Formats: sequence, C-alpha cells, structure tokens
Amino acid sequence: MAISTRIADMMAGSSFIRKMFETGAKLKAQYGADNVYDFSLGNPNVKPISDFSADLHRIIDEDQVGKHGYMPNAGYPWVRAAVAEYVSEEQKMKIDEGCVIMTCGAGGGMNIALKSILNPGDKVLVSSPCFMEYKFYADNHGGQLEIIPSAEGFDLDIDAFEKSIDASVAAVIINSPNNPSGKIYSEENLKDFSLMLDRASTRTGRSIYLLCDEPYRKIVFDGAEVPAVFPLYRNTIVVTSYSKDLSIPGERIGYAAINPGADDFENLINAMILCNRILGFVNAPALMQRVVAGLQGRSVDIEAYRRKRDLLCDGLSDIGYKLEKPKGTFYLFLEVPGGDDLSFVDLLQEERVLVVPGSGFAMPGYFRISYCVDDSVIINSMNGFRTAFDKIK
Amino acid sequence: MAISTRIADMMAGSSFIRKMFETGAKLKAQYGADNVYDFSLGNPNVKPISDFSADLHRIIDEDQVGKHGYMPNAGYPWVRAAVAEYVSEEQKMKIDEGCVIMTCGAGGGMNIALKSILNPGDKVLVSSPCFMEYKFYADNHGGQLEIIPSAEGFDLDIDAFEKSIDASVAAVIINSPNNPSGKIYSEENLKDFSLMLDRASTRTGRSIYLLCDEPYRKIVFDGAEVPAVFPLYRNTIVVTSYSKDLSIPGERIGYAAINPGADDFENLINAMILCNRILGFVNAPALMQRVVAGLQGRSVDIEAYRRKRDLLCDGLSDIGYKLEKPKGTFYLFLEVPGGDDLSFVDLLQEERVLVVPGSGFAMPGYFRISYCVDDSVIINSMNGFRTAFDKIK
Repeated sequence: MAISTRIADMMAGSSFIRKMFETGAKLKAQYGADNVYDFSLGNPNVKPISDFSADLHRIIDEDQVGKHGYMPNAGYPWVRAAVAEYVSEEQKMKIDEGCVIMTCGAGGGMNIALKSILNPGDKVLVSSPCFMEYKFYADNHGGQLEIIPSAEGFDLDIDAFEKSIDASVAAVIINSPNNPSGKIYSEENLKDFSLMLDRASTRTGRSIYLLCDEPYRKIVFDGAEVPAVFPLYRNTIVVTSYSKDLSIPGERIGYAAINPGADDFENLINAMILCNRILGFVNAPALMQRVVAGLQGRSVDIEAYRRKRDLLCDGLSDIGYKLEKPKGTFYLFLEVPGGDDLSFVDLLQEERVLVVPGSGFAMPGYFRISYCVDDSVIINSMNGFRTAFDKIK
Repeated sequence: MAISTRIADMMAGSSFIRKMFETGAKLKAQYGADNVYDFSLGNPNVKPISDFSADLHRIIDEDQVGKHGYMPNAGYPWVRAAVAEYVSEEQKMKIDEGCVIMTCGAGGGMNIALKSILNPGDKVLVSSPCFMEYKFYADNHGGQLEIIPSAEGFDLDIDAFEKSIDASVAAVIINSPNNPSGKIYSEENLKDFSLMLDRASTRTGRSIYLLCDEPYRKIVFDGAEVPAVFPLYRNTIVVTSYSKDLSIPGERIGYAAINPGADDFENLINAMILCNRILGFVNAPALMQRVVAGLQGRSVDIEAYRRKRDLLCDGLSDIGYKLEKPKGTFYLFLEVPGGDDLSFVDLLQEERVLVVPGSGFAMPGYFRISYCVDDSVIINSMNGFRTAFDKIK
C-alpha cells in the first residue's frame, strides 16, 4: 500500500455505497437507463433560469482586461457586496461585503470554515439524519464528527446536544431545510437551540461556532419559511451554494457569510480567506461569481419540485407507505416497511428502483428518495414501490 | 482566540507578505495605479484566445439536460479522454481517460494528490527556489515540506536530495518551468533525478511519488522544450492547469494525470477522486471542463511574453543588473545588487516598483519580477530600477 492509510481506510469503508452505484450501473446496462428508476442522487434536473444563460453570454462579451484572471481570494468586492445586500434581507441583519467570502460551492465553504476553526481532536456536532460528507469535512481538518440523534419529527434535540457539549466542541452544524429529511427547523426550535449554545459556551469557556449549511433554503413549499439564524446566535456562519437554487451544482459556486457579531470576527474571516487560498480553491470560479451577482434571490421553478413531491408522496401513501410531506428540499425521507433499510433497499433494487438507505445518513430504518427526476420516473416507479411493499407486508 | 491556533500562527507568519501588499495598495492610492509598477503578482495579462469565448458561447447554447449539473467526481469521461489523448503526446506515453482527473486548477490537483499520499509526519521534498504555497499544501494533509537548496544554475541537486531521503519521504515536487526562476530542468538532470529516486525508493522500501507541477509548460521561449517525465519515472503524477496557457486563472480549471505504471495505481487514482470529493472541490467546474476539452494544446500569444521578457532583461542588463534570460514562465529571478533582498525590495518600493524578495521563495539574495504586465509598465519602471541600483553601488 503506497497511498495514505487513512484514505485507504476511507475507501474500504465507502465500499457499500460504491457497491450500490455499481449495482445501479449494472442494472442500467442490463435493462436500459429508462427502465431503471434512479432516485439515489441529488442532481437537480430542473432547468436553470433563462437569465442565467443570457447573463453568461453578456458577461463573456464584456470587454474587460483580466476578466478570467485572479481576483482577491475572497472574491470580487462588488460580487461580495451584492451577496451581502441579499444576505442582509434573508438573515434580517445588515451586513457588508467584509462578512462574505465567495466559495467553490457549499462543500468548499464548509471546508474552509472547519479548517479555520478546528484544533486537533476537536469535535463537531450535528443532528441525525445528516449528510455524511460532514464526517469527511471534519476529519480533513483534524476534527471528529459526533452525531446527535434527533428528537420527534426530526427536531433538534436540545437536551441531547447540551449533554454532549464539552470544551472539545468547536462547532455545530445544522442543515435546514435538511438533507435527507426535508425538515425545516422552526424558529422556536432554533431559538431554544441558540440559547442552549450560549449556555454551553459559557459553561465550557469556549466559543462554539454554528455552521448553517443552507443550500436548500429556496427549495421550500406550501408557503414555508426558513427562519433567519443571524439574529438568534452571534457565532453563526451561513454556508450555501447556488447549486440547487439555480440548478448549477457542477459549476461550484457558493458563499460563506459570517455574522458580524461573531467572536474573534476579524481573525475568523481572515482565516477563512487564507484557507480558501491554501486548500487550493484559491478563489471561487470567476465567471460564475460575475453571473450570480446579478441573480441574487432568484431560483428555478420551485413549483416543478412541488409537483414532483406531491406525485411521489400521494403515490406512495396510496400504496400504504407511512410518510409526511416534507416542506423543503427535493428529498423524501421515510420509514421502511419492516424496519430494515438495507434489505428493503435491496428489495427495491430487484424492482429496478434505486434509493439510499437511512444508514447512509446515520438513521437506519429509513430511506431517502431523491425526487429531482422526470415526472415519468416517479410515475413509472410506482409498480416497483408497490411490489416491494407487498413483499414485506 | 476562538479560531484554530495553527491557522492563527500561519496568519501571523504571513504578515510580511501582507505588509508588502498593503504598502503596494497605499502607494497606488497615493500616486495612482499608473504610477506604481507592480511586478509582484503572477496574474496573466495576455488576453485569452478568441476561441475560448467563442466556444463558451456555443456550449452555453447547447441543448442538453443537466449540462451545469454534477458529473462523476473525476470529471466528464469525454473531457478526461480528450486530455488523456493530449497528455499521451506531451508525455510520450499512451494513457487513457482512467489516468486523468479534472481538477480545480493546479492548486486543487496538488492538494488531492498530497492528501491521497501522505501519512501523518511524512515529508515532501522540493528544490529551492520554490513556490511557497507547497508548504501549506503539505501541511494541510499532515505532511511537512523540506526545501533542498538547488545546485548551480538552479539545477536539481541530485546528491543533496539523495542524502535527504529517508523512509519518511512520501513525495517529491518538481516545478518546471519553475516559479520563480523560469528554469526548465534538462532531460539529463531529470534522468539523473529519476534514477536517484529509484535508488532511494529501493533503499527506504517506500514508493516515492514525483509530483510534477507544470502550469508553465507552454510558456517557453527560444525553441526550448520541457522534457516528458512519464518515460523517466513510473511514480509520476503530472499536475497542471489552464490558468497560464489560456490566461484564465480565476476559472480554476486544471487536471492531474497519473503514470499508468505507478505503484498502487488503482488505489492512487481512486484515492485522488475520493479526495477531490471530500475536500469540497466535488468536481472541476463543469462549463470550464467542456470548454478546455476542445482547446487541448492551445495557448495564448507566447510571443507577447517573449517580447516582455526581452524588454525587461535588456533594460535591466543595460543598467548593470546581473541576469540570465529565463527560458520559460513569465518570471525573472535575479540576484539583488548588494545581496540583501529585503532591503533592496524596500529600495525599489521607494521608487514605486513592487517585486517579491527571494526570501519569499526560500532563496534570499534574489528577487522575482513578474513580467505579465503591460509593456509600458516595464518601460516606465526602468528609471526606478536604475535609481535603486545606483543607490546600492
């Protein structure tokens, strides 16, 4: 073994997910992609808004020296200012460009934030179910992710978090609307959570940064709103991307915004800018920065996702699946009939229906359906969902 | 201090460079940007080729579902294939798409390679003078950079490397054409170096990976050629970007290509793909991947850089500076009159000429002039260069 033993271990550990993808690829080769119902990926299939392409064309033709060149590592000052203006509204707190760093997607933003905060051995807490990349992101920078089981209805379990916080906890991640559950934490739950963080911080004598990973903030339904977190807790860093809002996840553009009242603010933002550089991101892609500056607050057709959600949820409810319609994201996370997610996912695979077991989100007994697919995939998959359901019952 | 102590230390350590930039900004505010001759940055000022914009327009209009979406973490298979075909020529060894990973620039490529290879405490060797970001890149992943002084004429010092290699050495970086020296290592020097690596590897019982950071490969003059390294040493990973070839450093697009004969090849490439994902890059920007696929082997007007080099070198020689015309890159690295680079850089600053001291490249007594600037900047700076020179003599 000539490579890093740590990375070799990670590869061995992720063989389960790789096996799932390999099985999916084999099924598609065998039956044709149209006859496999792939709900395993969070790759938006709704088209970007037409202004996105129009703006790209316009910007490419602008006569400006160095327009594809380096800019400050934090991004173009005028792009950061446009984002700051928008974030001020969304977070109900006036911030300026000095609080914003343009990043290579939310994944880039999370990594520069964690690298800036963590000392070796520090813990990062998150509520289950959760996006498991966080485990790698914490580990990348010497930290360790600890997963706190959620309360009833996927709420943040305030007591459980409070009991788990000691002086080794440097950061807490929340992800709302949540991947995979679609849960939007209520303002009340977030207020209680913030008060708990304040108490815990006083008790441990350590600033605890709250990383709000919010790439699904605009994918919400039925008039739901995602509460602002800046007014609730000063040590908040919002990390997000335009991947889902604009259906451009492959372009790697997002930002991190820091509450101006955060402890050690100047050091924190300068550390994040430094980490953006030294981790090799250097800066968020130039052309995409310029495009998104003019598309603040815009999003793809959310109604299309609402329709897909209803099509899926109504169909599965009719079959007998127990579920609640999620208020956000393009994921449905529901209990598996029979309780064993790994074997139920296998049953669905036999029907050429690909989903991800809850074990992949630290919540066995559930499974995730990613419904950012053509309506026809949802409709045509229903027979498979029914057959698997009937086999268990 | 609420942030990472390691990052805080790095920020304190980089205060010298920050001070330099602050002084530069102050001078520009005071005298006007046109009256400050800024040779401190490697930000290409030659225009991208017109096909770059034309191809962007065409690709943006292509009717294709998910064209800004996620693709495999290693990049689009057809883009990797186009790169593999080109690298096969350049490296004089047939490779296929399975040897190529599209990356967020060379900085991204170096980081995923080092993370894939390094175990805690491992050493990474590099020859001086060198791009000091390597120190951070090694440190990011638990490694430690060790700088080996170069031989006469910036050649790789084979003996010095051989003596420094023990079982803790996991990787060696070479950067040719070199930033800051412009040096292109000769085929003979590289052959001797490769044989030494083979001997050292046998002695220590450990595979030593050679990371060839080659972003300046196409910026060469006077018919110079950069030797292929794949045929010389099997454990080679070439990392590069289109930043300088196409004048698009802000767009963060590059690739890593692994010699198919490398030890532990399958694990190595899979590790690098995994690291591309978990470090938060996820994938190289989608649109840029599609554009560069059709621009293999293309580059901006190298003749413009040749002209700038000659203008600068001839002017400085006339004044009395001791220098050799570099065969590659857009940097000139030369001895400071008087020998003290820090105080000479201050002298130049008094003349509103901004350059980087050799201390910033682990080679005090020299300074770097980055000549990717308008010809007029070079011409108008000559008085300042003369005055500083005369003050020392």
